[in-house]
Amino acid sequence: MLNVHLVPHSHDDVGWLKTVDQYYYGVRNWDQHAGVQYILDSVVAQLAADPSRRFVYAEVAFLARWWRQQDRATRSLLRELVQEGRLEFVGGGWCMSDEAAAHYGPALEQLALGRRLLRRLFGACGTPRVAWQIDPFGHARHLAATFAQMGYDGLFLGRVDHQDKWVRLQRRELELLWRGSSSLEPPQADIFTGEVTALSPGILPNVYDPPAGLCWDQLCADAPLVDGDGPERNVDAVVDSFLGAAATQAQQYRTNHILMTMGSDFHYENAHLWFKNLDKLIAHTNARQANGSRVHALYSTPSCYLRELHRANLTWPLKTDDFFPYSDGPHQFWTGYFSSRPALKGYERLSSGFLQVCSQLEALAGPAARVGPYGPGDSSVLREAVAVAQHHDAVAGTERQHVANDYARQLAKGWDTCQVLVANALSLLGGTKDPLEFCNALNVSVCPLSEASPQFTVILYNPLARALAWPVRLPVGGSSYAVSDPQGRPVASQHLRVLFDPVTGHLSEIHNLAEGLSLPVFQSFYWYNASTGDALSPQASGAYIFRPNASDPIPVAKAAATRLLKTPLVQELQQNFSAWCSQVLRLRPGQPYLELEWSVGPIPVSDGLGKEVISRFRTPLATAGRFHTDSNGRQVLERRRDYRPTWNLSQSEPVAGNYYPVNTRIFIEVHRRLLRDDGRGLGEALDEPGADGRGLAVRGRHLVLLGAAAAAAERHRPRAQEMATPPHLVLAAGPGPHLRQFSGLRRPLPPNLHLLSLEARGAVSVLLRLEHLYERGESRNGSRPATVDLTTLFSAFTVTSVREMALGGDVPLESVSRLLWNTDTGTPKPRRAPRPDPRRVRLEPMEIRTFLASVRYRGPGEGGS
Amino acid sequence: MLNVHLVPHSHDDVGWLKTVDQYYYGVRNWDQHAGVQYILDSVVAQLAADPSRRFVYAEVAFLARWWRQQDRATRSLLRELVQEGRLEFVGGGWCMSDEAAAHYGPALEQLALGRRLLRRLFGACGTPRVAWQIDPFGHARHLAATFAQMGYDGLFLGRVDHQDKWVRLQRRELELLWRGSSSLEPPQADIFTGEVTALSPGILPNVYDPPAGLCWDQLCADAPLVDGDGPERNVDAVVDSFLGAAATQAQQYRTNHILMTMGSDFHYENAHLWFKNLDKLIAHTNARQANGSRVHALYSTPSCYLRELHRANLTWPLKTDDFFPYSDGPHQFWTGYFSSRPALKGYERLSSGFLQVCSQLEALAGPAARVGPYGPGDSSVLREAVAVAQHHDAVAGTERQHVANDYARQLAKGWDTCQVLVANALSLLGGTKDPLEFCNALNVSVCPLSEASPQFTVILYNPLARALAWPVRLPVGGSSYAVSDPQGRPVASQHLRVLFDPVTGHLSEIHNLAEGLSLPVFQSFYWYNASTGDALSPQASGAYIFRPNASDPIPVAKAAATRLLKTPLVQELQQNFSAWCSQVLRLRPGQPYLELEWSVGPIPVSDGLGKEVISRFRTPLATAGRFHTDSNGRQVLERRRDYRPTWNLSQSEPVAGNYYPVNTRIFIEVHRRLLRDDGRGLGEALDEPGADGRGLAVRGRHLVLLGAAAAAAERHRPRAQEMATPPHLVLAAGPGPHLRQFSGLRRPLPPNLHLLSLEARGAVSVLLRLEHLYERGESRNGSRPATVDLTTLFSAFTVTSVREMALGGDVPLESVSRLLWNTDTGTPKPRRAPRPDPRRVRLEPMEIRTFLASVRYRGPGEGGS
Repeated sequence: MLNVHLVPHSHDDVGWLKTVDQYYYGVRNWDQHAGVQYILDSVVAQLAADPSRRFVYAEVAFLARWWRQQDRATRSLLRELVQEGRLEFVGGGWCMSDEAAAHYGPALEQLALGRRLLRRLFGACGTPRVAWQIDPFGHARHLAATFAQMGYDGLFLGRVDHQDKWVRLQRRELELLWRGSSSLEPPQADIFTGEVTALSPGILPNVYDPPAGLCWDQLCADAPLVDGDGPERNVDAVVDSFLGAAATQAQQYRTNHILMTMGSDFHYENAHLWFKNLDKLIAHTNARQANGSRVHALYSTPSCYLRELHRANLTWPLKTDDFFPYSDGPHQFWTGYFSSRPALKGYERLSSGFLQVCSQLEALAGPAARVGPYGPGDSSVLREAVAVAQHHDAVAGTERQHVANDYARQLAKGWDTCQVLVANALSLLGGTKDPLEFCNALNVSVCPLSEASPQFTVILYNPLARALAWPVRLPVGGSSYAVSDPQGRPVASQHLRVLFDPVTGHLSEIHNLAEGLSLPVFQSFYWYNASTGDALSPQASGAYIFRPNASDPIPVAKAAATRLLKTPLVQELQQNFSAWCSQVLRLRPGQPYLELEWSVGPIPVSDGLGKEVISRFRTPLATAGRFHTDSNGRQVLERRRDYRPTWNLSQSEPVAGNYYPVNTRIFIEVHRRLLRDDGRGLGEALDEPGADGRGLAVRGRHLVLLGAAAAAAERHRPRAQEMATPPHLVLAAGPGPHLRQFSGLRRPLPPNLHLLSLEARGAVSVLLRLEHLYERGESRNGSRPATVDLTTLFSAFTVTSVREMALGGDVPLESVSRLLWNTDTGTPKPRRAPRPDPRRVRLEPMEIRTFLASVRYRGPGEGGS
Repeated sequence: MLNVHLVPHSHDDVGWLKTVDQYYYGVRNWDQHAGVQYILDSVVAQLAADPSRRFVYAEVAFLARWWRQQDRATRSLLRELVQEGRLEFVGGGWCMSDEAAAHYGPALEQLALGRRLLRRLFGACGTPRVAWQIDPFGHARHLAATFAQMGYDGLFLGRVDHQDKWVRLQRRELELLWRGSSSLEPPQADIFTGEVTALSPGILPNVYDPPAGLCWDQLCADAPLVDGDGPERNVDAVVDSFLGAAATQAQQYRTNHILMTMGSDFHYENAHLWFKNLDKLIAHTNARQANGSRVHALYSTPSCYLRELHRANLTWPLKTDDFFPYSDGPHQFWTGYFSSRPALKGYERLSSGFLQVCSQLEALAGPAARVGPYGPGDSSVLREAVAVAQHHDAVAGTERQHVANDYARQLAKGWDTCQVLVANALSLLGGTKDPLEFCNALNVSVCPLSEASPQFTVILYNPLARALAWPVRLPVGGSSYAVSDPQGRPVASQHLRVLFDPVTGHLSEIHNLAEGLSLPVFQSFYWYNASTGDALSPQASGAYIFRPNASDPIPVAKAAATRLLKTPLVQELQQNFSAWCSQVLRLRPGQPYLELEWSVGPIPVSDGLGKEVISRFRTPLATAGRFHTDSNGRQVLERRRDYRPTWNLSQSEPVAGNYYPVNTRIFIEVHRRLLRDDGRGLGEALDEPGADGRGLAVRGRHLVLLGAAAAAAERHRPRAQEMATPPHLVLAAGPGPHLRQFSGLRRPLPPNLHLLSLEARGAVSVLLRLEHLYERGESRNGSRPATVDLTTLFSAFTVTSVREMALGGDVPLESVSRLLWNTDTGTPKPRRAPRPDPRRVRLEPMEIRTFLASVRYRGPGEGGS
């Protein structure tokens, strides 16, 4: 018997063509008809009406809004539906996060935030068993590892490169075991991964839609099942078509179970339509069994389907690379969004860094920081805003302009309440009630306090668990200042050397004096002319898709006007390529990298040409087309030009087809301004106007390191952490707080460990995540295991007991039991975790350990180190 | 306090852009998103969820389909909702009938059919109290009289001529008492009539839609009420806008109650959207009363609103003319549909005539006719098909082509089952079991039996309650036939004289020899070039709107080729105007009229010009622009060129603005073929292709009578009856039934009475409608009251007792109690009806009396007269 698992679902983007609130309420339906409040209302009513029905839901950002508006009876009904498995959460993050542009920290935290709410509302039954990434445009290996470590049993994907998919389909390898880490011991980072839909020859993949002709939402136009008499009767034809689709799909998968996604974007606003027709489809399909049909249709969920696959006890293929880049056609590489909306991407990074500052200070200062003295402070607004920004149409840069503006608005609102909290915490920890200033406009060199005051105090909070030298740039009004450190001593200095072409002003060579290395490096800016379609394909470049109209980019300028600045603290070469493209190359004493701070924009488009601006580094290194990029800013994957590890690539876009997402290692593209939509639903050109309508200018920093491969990780790993969570600057007028220096830690962490999360959980507990920064074998020192004593680590509180949790922070580690899967290389069994001793917490390479710690805060007089 | 009655409703066309079944199931949603099954499902669930909610529903054709598919619990729930007044039926006909092209007989019967089902399912609470004609394109006085006599308390209209509406709005006369008959004693035909929506200056009337910005269906894009915090909060602005609309509307009506229609075409498929937002609107509006607001919003129904108007005890204006023609702008006269799709209009007439034959024979032959011997027969299929065809986008000719085809399909299916029933009845009454042939293709002169058989029997059934001479034309294969009457005697003959212009072949003069009258009459065919929009207005001529691009029509031909045929039975002049336009003028011995049988089509459009073909009669009569047309084929209303009785007309379309609906008296326009849509939602040009794709050809008959005015009614009234319910012809091979002649009546009715309905109601009762054919004062003889003895009227059964019913046949007359309304001329009180004596049933002019009669059928041997 072939079992067809029908999975009713609604894919509810946490912002895209409309803002989150607009989607929730169903405002602005002329842009897109979608109202999530009604979806949840309607689904709950329809599930209540018939116990055989099932529904899966993913986006907790919407569920949270909805829950707040429900009365007691509805909440109780929802709990009942969850308890009985009629409503199942999949994914269960605050949103369904992007995988290319999302940094692993906030990507993890948005999952944790959603899962935590589910746990609080529904207990263990609310905890999702499967990850559900059916729409993101390519899939990251690190995120797979994250899912595995949170306890998910499986991961379902919707979008896989069409060539990859076609090969897998023929080999019946659409379902596989994905090994998400080469450092963690299997099965720690292993996750069963399935592609939710099959591909029919000559037919576009339906991604997470239902099979053709079987879409019964109000947004579809397929005929409903008509089983009465009359000219419209179609039930026999519809069941035939369903059985045909099932038979085709069954040939592409390995068991006698297949899954069909019955839903799509913002479906189920009128859930009755779907369920009434699915009821009929199931009844009529199963009735045919009396005449010998061997197909059984049922309401199901992905976890139920997964249990059946597991029960089949087959051997599955193993995958160790990732699913980037994604293309859905020969000229349709979804590599444009890797750098769409760089300003929003930058603001998301700044915000998630500040969230760590805010969160840490909240935990260190204790509950009083939420109360005053600067007013009520709150980290949850920023936490939710950063979580929302992880959505695969948020940080991805594939949302409409007004939606991008709204994400920024949400983040800014989060900053406001976090800044009050930070001020409260600094006041409590440092003993000041003077006004503090946050200088939010430093990016445009505006800070009234530093510009006007003859004397002011710079307070720097470093969220890293180690000491750091950090240059601070402030606009000032005076011509000379005395700067003193917390102890009142002058700051001292020492060093890379960099050579420039004296004629063109371009970077030409880098010397690492300490290691005696040098490398010719030519760097400059270019732009690709965005395709508007050509004879090969009408595909235009757009927010999602990168498609240059030629393989050679055009230089922004042949030469740069340059200006050199030399001080004891910094040497800067300012390069001016054009009115809209400039760069500062910066070297500082003791700084092991060259910093390139570039400014691009407003990109001119008055010539009618969309432009994809790149920063290109050319070296004579013989790399054989190999390079490395990161996975969510943490893992490092090897890439090769015109090559994919698991299939024989037919390369049809020599530029776009070789782009990979880069978060912390090698930026390639920097900014884009396009005049066409790329036909993936956005319906708007990526033509960011900026506040003055002239086009958006963005600024970014590239750090270039030159060194021996063996020592590279010890250089780039810390730099990446510093960029992700940089020190946060606050100004105080006058002499500032009484306490001149404070450390939340009694001692720094070992250099290969990172304090990934420190988050207050009520008045007497905190959530901790400790992270090992290195891959196995990556560095002689860095890749060593490291051990830390949690009990005495913090100065502001004492850890009295800990409970180790799975990565999400919501489930005790010992209660996690995951399905095990066979591959050709065997069936890895999980190591039984020993009961953790908080005095000796050991981390292996790439490991992240999560603890819920009970803490006792010191009294008001006990603060400080 | 201003009370705003919010009336949730869904306007569900019984066919328009989709067929009835397509609308019911929600098939073909790409044409129009609409699925009535879901509307009813959804509304019932939402009403059940909150007892304060109300909903009104009109179209029983859909309710009947839905009811059949419900389980016991849902049926019981629906009964409860109706009992409690939460679901109220308005109108309650099988459909919301057209008013211009619908004949009074089937228009009445479709109302009766719907009301009867409501009564059967829900008892007295299911009986609608208000008529609900919110979409028909103009309103007929006779239909108003029909509503009054069925017991409705009020009538609500949506479309009224924009000039009329504007004048009424300023005078606060949008609500009035409409006197539907000048013959019936008030208040018999009086009905309170209101226009459901007001008009705001500069804004198009919203007809039956909600006020701007307050539309919360899935088909609308208005913002839902957002009363939570956040950037989308709009509740204050929405309530302001609602209060503004209410204040404007209150100025245009007379009481402190106003009604707002909260719904539109096929709304409430997801009723939750509407009700959730209306709940909020009501709550927030009424909450403002605490701050001094004097507006109270409530869920309501039209009957509840009507009771409040009645309670106000005001004096209302009286109206005695009708609401034709309707225009919604200076160049937008909805007079095109009076003759759109003449072939469908013709088939509807044929079918409703045949339904009378079928219905009468079913009643006369008794229940056995439904069983055999020719198989199971059934009149209900044709009854429902004819009822559906009364819809204001069916017989109106304003439906899409494929929908027009489906109406024809439904009618044809009804013919099939009725023909079996008719054959059974003829067999039972006449004693034959030989095959009968119905010759359905006589319109194209095809009848295999008559063409091939040397001998055959012609069976004619005359549904009129009086003897009739009726010419029969059959295609035959032989060259000479002996024709004998039922008694075997030859048919005898005598006569108008008609003169023709010998040069052009046109009719030039008619002589009434008997009365010594003669009148020059020039008749010919012309066409108007359909406007495609001009400098005055972009309005094109279309299915609804007639707009010629010039006031003078173009002759089809200057002269006709003619051929004369003279036999003892008929004189025919055949006129050939063009390849697509011809006419036969016919005179028969004893026939008091000239018959003009015209054929028009396929109308050529290869020149790119839409054409509106007319038959024009020109006489030198000095009429001062006055003429008469009928109202639903029964009443006669005086019309005057460029004039409206109740306001000072500003005439902007001198041709289209003088067209009136004509059903039985003076046809003007005959056929149309248009190449543009007129922008009223149909989205299709009225370019009927016909079966061969070349364009539809239609044939019609005009009867021209010439006589003194005093005697005219006695000539035209019987002719109209004969055309509406002509004798029906059946052929039998060979000698035919044993019984050569049969009459269902023991004696003919008086000539001024008509047997309007004779309909079996179960095994032992029949529904009878007797109609007085004449207006008061219209004819010396005809307008006299007439009396009939029902008990001995019928030969097939004896009437043992009768109960007099209101016109609908569903409510006993004595239980009808209607609201009485004051006008300047007083408050007419109803005459208390005496208990009817079935032996002496008296009818006054224009009266229709309805009886439910218990009958005893004669045994098989007792048949015949």
